[in-house]
Amino acid sequence: MAQDNSIKTREQDYSAWYLDVIREAQLADYSPVKGCMVLRPHGFGVWDNIKNDLDRRFKETGHVNAYFPLFIPMEFLSREAQHVEGFAKECAVVTHHRLRSVTDANGKVGVEPDPAAKLEEPLIVRPTSETIIWHMYGRWIDSWRDLPLLINQWANVVRWEMKTRPFLRTAEFLWQEGHTAHATEVEAVEEAERMLQVYADFCHETLAIPVITGSKSSAERFAGAEDTYCIEAMMQNTWALQAGTSHFLGQNFAKAFDVTFQNTEGERELVWATSWGVSTRLVGAVIMTHSDDTGLVLPPKVAPIQVVIIPIARKDHERETVMEFVGGLKSELLASGVRVHVDDRTKMKPGAKYYEWERKGVCLRMEVGPRDVKGESAFCKKRTGGDKFSVAREGAGPAVVQILTDIQAELLANATALRVENTHDVADYETFKSELKANGGWYRVAWFDDGEAEARIKDETKATIRCFPIGDQDVEGKTCFYSGKPANRIAIFARAY
Amino acid sequence: MAQDNSIKTREQDYSAWYLDVIREAQLADYSPVKGCMVLRPHGFGVWDNIKNDLDRRFKETGHVNAYFPLFIPMEFLSREAQHVEGFAKECAVVTHHRLRSVTDANGKVGVEPDPAAKLEEPLIVRPTSETIIWHMYGRWIDSWRDLPLLINQWANVVRWEMKTRPFLRTAEFLWQEGHTAHATEVEAVEEAERMLQVYADFCHETLAIPVITGSKSSAERFAGAEDTYCIEAMMQNTWALQAGTSHFLGQNFAKAFDVTFQNTEGERELVWATSWGVSTRLVGAVIMTHSDDTGLVLPPKVAPIQVVIIPIARKDHERETVMEFVGGLKSELLASGVRVHVDDRTKMKPGAKYYEWERKGVCLRMEVGPRDVKGESAFCKKRTGGDKFSVAREGAGPAVVQILTDIQAELLANATALRVENTHDVADYETFKSELKANGGWYRVAWFDDGEAEARIKDETKATIRCFPIGDQDVEGKTCFYSGKPANRIAIFARAY
Repeated sequence: MAQDNSIKTREQDYSAWYLDVIREAQLADYSPVKGCMVLRPHGFGVWDNIKNDLDRRFKETGHVNAYFPLFIPMEFLSREAQHVEGFAKECAVVTHHRLRSVTDANGKVGVEPDPAAKLEEPLIVRPTSETIIWHMYGRWIDSWRDLPLLINQWANVVRWEMKTRPFLRTAEFLWQEGHTAHATEVEAVEEAERMLQVYADFCHETLAIPVITGSKSSAERFAGAEDTYCIEAMMQNTWALQAGTSHFLGQNFAKAFDVTFQNTEGERELVWATSWGVSTRLVGAVIMTHSDDTGLVLPPKVAPIQVVIIPIARKDHERETVMEFVGGLKSELLASGVRVHVDDRTKMKPGAKYYEWERKGVCLRMEVGPRDVKGESAFCKKRTGGDKFSVAREGAGPAVVQILTDIQAELLANATALRVENTHDVADYETFKSELKANGGWYRVAWFDDGEAEARIKDETKATIRCFPIGDQDVEGKTCFYSGKPANRIAIFARAY
Repeated sequence: MAQDNSIKTREQDYSAWYLDVIREAQLADYSPVKGCMVLRPHGFGVWDNIKNDLDRRFKETGHVNAYFPLFIPMEFLSREAQHVEGFAKECAVVTHHRLRSVTDANGKVGVEPDPAAKLEEPLIVRPTSETIIWHMYGRWIDSWRDLPLLINQWANVVRWEMKTRPFLRTAEFLWQEGHTAHATEVEAVEEAERMLQVYADFCHETLAIPVITGSKSSAERFAGAEDTYCIEAMMQNTWALQAGTSHFLGQNFAKAFDVTFQNTEGERELVWATSWGVSTRLVGAVIMTHSDDTGLVLPPKVAPIQVVIIPIARKDHERETVMEFVGGLKSELLASGVRVHVDDRTKMKPGAKYYEWERKGVCLRMEVGPRDVKGESAFCKKRTGGDKFSVAREGAGPAVVQILTDIQAELLANATALRVENTHDVADYETFKSELKANGGWYRVAWFDDGEAEARIKDETKATIRCFPIGDQDVEGKTCFYSGKPANRIAIFARAY
């Protein structure tokens, strides 16, 4: 059965376009386990680049990596009341530690969980690791000398989601979770804000995604947090995507796991906490922010392959000189730190190669035929913008680095323009409703904070408060766009993933 | 309750010494989940260096990374008869996807697996990923053009072990698993051998562990493999530790998951497979190979901190000049690629710092006091060997790099000497038994391959065949040390972890 390998346009069907791009760029595939995806090499390569860049930023801000167990004793989850409320409904539960053979009515041999190997207490597969980490912190923290404790973990987590979408929402996903412990509230709040800014800088500089930073309303807060900060990105259909969160956890987990320290005066105090995380969801954000109807578009900084060189030799005698030239060009690009791939597959036409690498989001294509060798240059095409031009062999390294830098800047500028064009100030609810319905977009409003009103708006419009933007909270003299009461917040409302 | 923080000597109690070193160097800690450990930052740092070095070697040999689901449908395991036999008895089984609230007789609220959320088919937590990966390979492989497929995965796996020991054997551990698919048997065997050599080179060059390479007897073969190759290391108590394996899987998984390809003649053939893996067990191998009664000793190439600088300023006015000098020294070492840490904790005496960093296995200590600043040098002590000497400030970078290189070579030389001294040729079983009992060690023997004889020797002596060493299989005219039959193998027998 032939597979349909066409990519729908964004205009035709935005959701289908997203799935088509993922399939055709070979980023991910469906697995036989419901809701779990396979990260194929090209998709994993993007995640690996994200991981390496973030890991450097975490280390520069004083954090170290560690690794905590996948399994959490079921009882741990109940210790923090809001936390169990938030996660109990989507936990994978391990109940047995052995299988046994079983023969069915037709004589077919299979396996089943061995009733004799039932666990005394079930284990849950971590949906997040606050509980087990704070249990360990209780063993490690004794004095003010042990603080702050700044630990990050790269791990897989499982949240049993019923409706899944590759990268954006899957039962298992890869992420990092930072968990820090502090002597004072002020330090903990500073840490939560610092890491939010690390995420925001990373999105701007590396993913070319112009996220906004904000804090969440209580309805959208992390289960167990006092305050949740977030970065929000606008996708090309103008929906919002929460791309990362940073939580000030107060002393909630210190209380639940009895974690105290002796302060410099010799008294015992509860420890203050933060946690913060981003996940493979960022790969989804990259796809949805930059790609087009031809396929994947990647910011050069996270592209597994930034440049593909395609040798073009129609006759055997041309091949040797072309390949020699290509080899030299490749070496120069590698020496300039460019991730370059030479596609030297024979029995495949150049056109088919162009098509494949465009779909896979390689930033720059360089074609080298006998005429290019003679002219000591390569014929180039950028993945975005459509320009075709020549790059001289001499100085090709720095020239290509400059082209990639320009592409990176261009992608950020385009995404920023989209966000600015589609973010609107609106003063009353009726206008908001009709504008949202007609044009989508983000709506910046004066707001009187009220969970019930927020829920009603969600029911009526499907829009939610994405955040209260940081640095944009001047409410003086403003009235709430919904209730008419004096506003105490500036809020961004939008449809979201 | 005060914790005992002493380290037993190797002579007193080798097993206790190993656990003491892990605790005092803060490499790992016990978790509340039976058999699962926490990798603390210092221990994780060693694994991270192992991972980065190996990952580079995998990429240089043409492999790419991907990520496959944590969960495997239970039925998959049964598809390959030997594979299920090998792993069914140690599988964590997920049976539910939700918890529900429950109130006990005392009114205490807790949670339990929700009976309404029982999975139709249980999932197992991967003990290894051959089955799910070959299911996916069935979707991805269609033609000879798709081969070879060379994929590696860095992941956590779970094998429910009853007797655990940190790093060496734990219920959950971190590892990499390479899974490759080939058009021919010859190519697959070459790949399995190539990756074994990659592991061996890595152990020699990076871990300073002089492993030997060999193939396993059928008793020790991987469940589902045609041939298992291994690297074996000698610990300081002369026991062997299997440090990594590489398997030629024949067409067993291709048959189980119906994976065929169209060859260049247009016919469909079954695909040939390999898999290969090393794990956090390597950290245990490093600890046991190099450490001493003072604590951890690390080869410089994997030490998270290679050099610690300890500023010594007894009076406040000394502090500024000392710290300025230390800052310059640190920059120079960083510029030479040295992983250096400045321990500038106040309110802690230098002696206490020396003690801590020695236990943690930092390769070189540099002390800087006012007199050193005047002399424009630093007073140094190597973690191993006990030499104390001065290093001039000018040219400190290259000088320290050279010292670290020498330490690395010294550790390899020491470990090699230990292995050579404790590996014996022996011609008859009685001598073997008495020598093994008296002195431990490895025994190189001529052997007639026979599983039952192997089992009897294990019963009587606890020694097993570690491997048939590669490149040392000249059996001509030799007779089996046990049966007296004409030998068909050279084998290494030893006690092993």
